[in-house]
Amino acid sequence: MDEYMQAAIDEARLGLEEGGVPIGSVLVHRGRIIGRGHNQRQQRGSVVLHGEMDALENAGRQPAQIYRESVLYTTLSPCPMCSGAIVLYGIPRVVIGENRTFMGAEAYLRAQGVELNVLDSDVCHELMASFIERYPEVWREDIGE
Amino acid sequence: MDEYMQAAIDEARLGLEEGGVPIGSVLVHRGRIIGRGHNQRQQRGSVVLHGEMDALENAGRQPAQIYRESVLYTTLSPCPMCSGAIVLYGIPRVVIGENRTFMGAEAYLRAQGVELNVLDSDVCHELMASFIERYPEVWREDIGE
Repeated sequence: MDEYMQAAIDEARLGLEEGGVPIGSVLVHRGRIIGRGHNQRQQRGSVVLHGEMDALENAGRQPAQIYRESVLYTTLSPCPMCSGAIVLYGIPRVVIGENRTFMGAEAYLRAQGVELNVLDSDVCHELMASFIERYPEVWREDIGE
Repeated sequence: MDEYMQAAIDEARLGLEEGGVPIGSVLVHRGRIIGRGHNQRQQRGSVVLHGEMDALENAGRQPAQIYRESVLYTTLSPCPMCSGAIVLYGIPRVVIGENRTFMGAEAYLRAQGVELNVLDSDVCHELMASFIERYPEVWREDIGE
């Protein structure tokens, strides 16, 4: 596992320990992690802070050029909201832990020219599968179902 | 001006008074405003709380059915991030103050089956035009440019 996806998984595990949806993300600029985050639905009652959004928010205000030189690592395929944020800020590449649990807006991202690398990680999948089994209603809420 | 777009404009003006980007939104469920918000880039250093996102966040966690019976009113055409949030939560209709200043992801929203009503409001346009003239770099940052 590369160190950035490992950092995203660490964020997901941190979320799980807090009683939250175990999805984590990191924003990496030229090899340096500039933002880390995880889903905040349970912890902060947030409907916008998915893992990817929380990592972007924690990276703070950045010039456009920084986003365009960055890679977003996330344990789960990005939903339409997070995909829209990726497009808004022009992040050129996303590394995705897995998309078996949930297929996000990958077709939309690719159509917008975003490069996607799907790792199909068993670790990422297991984190989500066990959470969904225990808290199916929280998960459904998180994806608007 | 209908009362909901007026409430969104009031939010935009509140943001302007705080020194922020003057974009406001309200989420309306069956005629009742359940969330109000405005862009928080300057005020809270937020890169995810556009007006629409702030209104969704302030509405709090809602069952999927509530979103599906709601209308989002926003003073400016929604960017890709906010449009993705609208699609994620299945909000069926968006009333847009204007899209002359900025054309958001309206084609994407329509393709996803979201009904859009663009009011082409001079009040909304003037709020943005005067802000952009004074703070062009803040505005460019807000749309990832």
